[in-house]
Amino acid sequence: MPNIDGNAIAQQVLAEVKAGVEALAPLIPHVVFVRVGDDPASVSYVNKKQKTAAAAGIRSSLRLFPEETSRETLLACIDGLNADPDVHGILVQAPLPPQFDEREVFNRITPAKDVDGFTSASIGGIVQENPAATAACTPAGIIELLRRSGVATSGRHAVVVGRSLIVGKPAALLLLAKGLDATVTVAHSRTRDLGAITRQAEILIAAIGRPGFITADMVREGAVVIDVGINRVPDASRKAGYRITGDVDYAGVAPKAALITPVPGGVGPMTVAMLMRNTLAAARAAAGMRATGPQPLPANHHAVP
Amino acid sequence: MPNIDGNAIAQQVLAEVKAGVEALAPLIPHVVFVRVGDDPASVSYVNKKQKTAAAAGIRSSLRLFPEETSRETLLACIDGLNADPDVHGILVQAPLPPQFDEREVFNRITPAKDVDGFTSASIGGIVQENPAATAACTPAGIIELLRRSGVATSGRHAVVVGRSLIVGKPAALLLLAKGLDATVTVAHSRTRDLGAITRQAEILIAAIGRPGFITADMVREGAVVIDVGINRVPDASRKAGYRITGDVDYAGVAPKAALITPVPGGVGPMTVAMLMRNTLAAARAAAGMRATGPQPLPANHHAVP
Repeated sequence: MPNIDGNAIAQQVLAEVKAGVEALAPLIPHVVFVRVGDDPASVSYVNKKQKTAAAAGIRSSLRLFPEETSRETLLACIDGLNADPDVHGILVQAPLPPQFDEREVFNRITPAKDVDGFTSASIGGIVQENPAATAACTPAGIIELLRRSGVATSGRHAVVVGRSLIVGKPAALLLLAKGLDATVTVAHSRTRDLGAITRQAEILIAAIGRPGFITADMVREGAVVIDVGINRVPDASRKAGYRITGDVDYAGVAPKAALITPVPGGVGPMTVAMLMRNTLAAARAAAGMRATGPQPLPANHHAVP
Repeated sequence: MPNIDGNAIAQQVLAEVKAGVEALAPLIPHVVFVRVGDDPASVSYVNKKQKTAAAAGIRSSLRLFPEETSRETLLACIDGLNADPDVHGILVQAPLPPQFDEREVFNRITPAKDVDGFTSASIGGIVQENPAATAACTPAGIIELLRRSGVATSGRHAVVVGRSLIVGKPAALLLLAKGLDATVTVAHSRTRDLGAITRQAEILIAAIGRPGFITADMVREGAVVIDVGINRVPDASRKAGYRITGDVDYAGVAPKAALITPVPGGVGPMTVAMLMRNTLAAARAAAGMRATGPQPLPANHHAVP
């Protein structure tokens, strides 16, 4: 049960992004992060994204708004960024305070600058299998982990547990597309006899948000297991008072898996790396260059784990 | 194995649309059909759509272009229709001649007038589970057949065979959405051991385009079977020289099915009915009224076939 090393693969991706950024000079890709309020996890995520951007040679800016910001103010900010030719990518950090309709806010971003891949046009472009469409960072990162780990997907049965807009549905759509060609099942909280479904998975993607939810009895021998969960579990032995754990019971599942992503160090680092790739792609497109590489690529069919 | 009577259900939907159109008076919903070339099937489909529109009280117009029309000419036509406040719906009949990129042409239609549901924004809206998004007519018709036949979907395993943009993928996305809550598998030409997948289906949707492809041995006892195929099979005994047949071997499968759609008379009439419902919804939205009813509704959970 060798691990898929998400940190190492993310570093590969980021090195490629850095080379791509350098090749764009004197143009410097510029992504703007928009954060409303001071949710600690959001503060930490945006910091991490800014640091990673800097390391990849990408310029980033931060627009901060107080928790009580109005819908009109936030939408006006997005409109301004949409119109600014100096801005290539826009990311509004979720979750937003309750006065916002997140779908409306995300959809306000012009698709060419939608580096998060959450706008309806971006998501619809993925359904249309448009190579110029931006895939959301986490599902794109999952595909990249599979691809760079030599996991064949064509004709294989992938089971995605979770039907979120941000992970489950786009991951299923990417796996189903031509070139990847997986048979795809999406299961979720309403699924009956979930174990009977997940035990069919040659590739199992867990994106439920419940720590240790996928146990060994739910996993087929030899499956490739991708754990998307990032759950904070109270842990008095840690300085932070919690530890991060995935949706998969790693200790139980790992011995059965052909490959498995650990948490942390699996999917997490890929999400940030793919954001940088999406930003580079947006800057390249703004410079009139066709997208090359930043979109989901076919899995490496000659290698089987 | 009682049939699901698509003609009767389509007539119900059309009666509701007609009542909705009358309630909009003096505004008359207006859909424009754009046809390029004289493909006989396209001529026949557009005629059928125009007749159905007239019967529902919907005004329709036809823009005809010769086979050799340029991309620029067609896009300029769409731009003009997008800008015309007198036009509520635009439908470009597929297939287009080879000089066109169908995705580009469909995506040019402004989402508010996209009664076919093929634009990236419409499809992305379905992924986002936006109740204001327009679902493509055939998958919306499938959901309506299930709903009006009292087929419960929540927690049930639906298998969609076919991954097209027009049927397979949107049908899967609709079944997966909250309110319908099916566990959904999408299988296709690359699926290994297809029978092992289809035999799990409590709801089986066949959208492959191969006559009689789904045979009895591939169907679970008591399944609800929706046959989306419209295949022309040579038949010297018919005046037309062909007969229309589905993707399901009806004679073999019907005895095992709890419910089954015949071909013709199943999904086919629903596609045109849902187009009319989408047109009414577009006209209502243009008149500043919120969408009520024209979007996919939750299945009728209290009834089980």
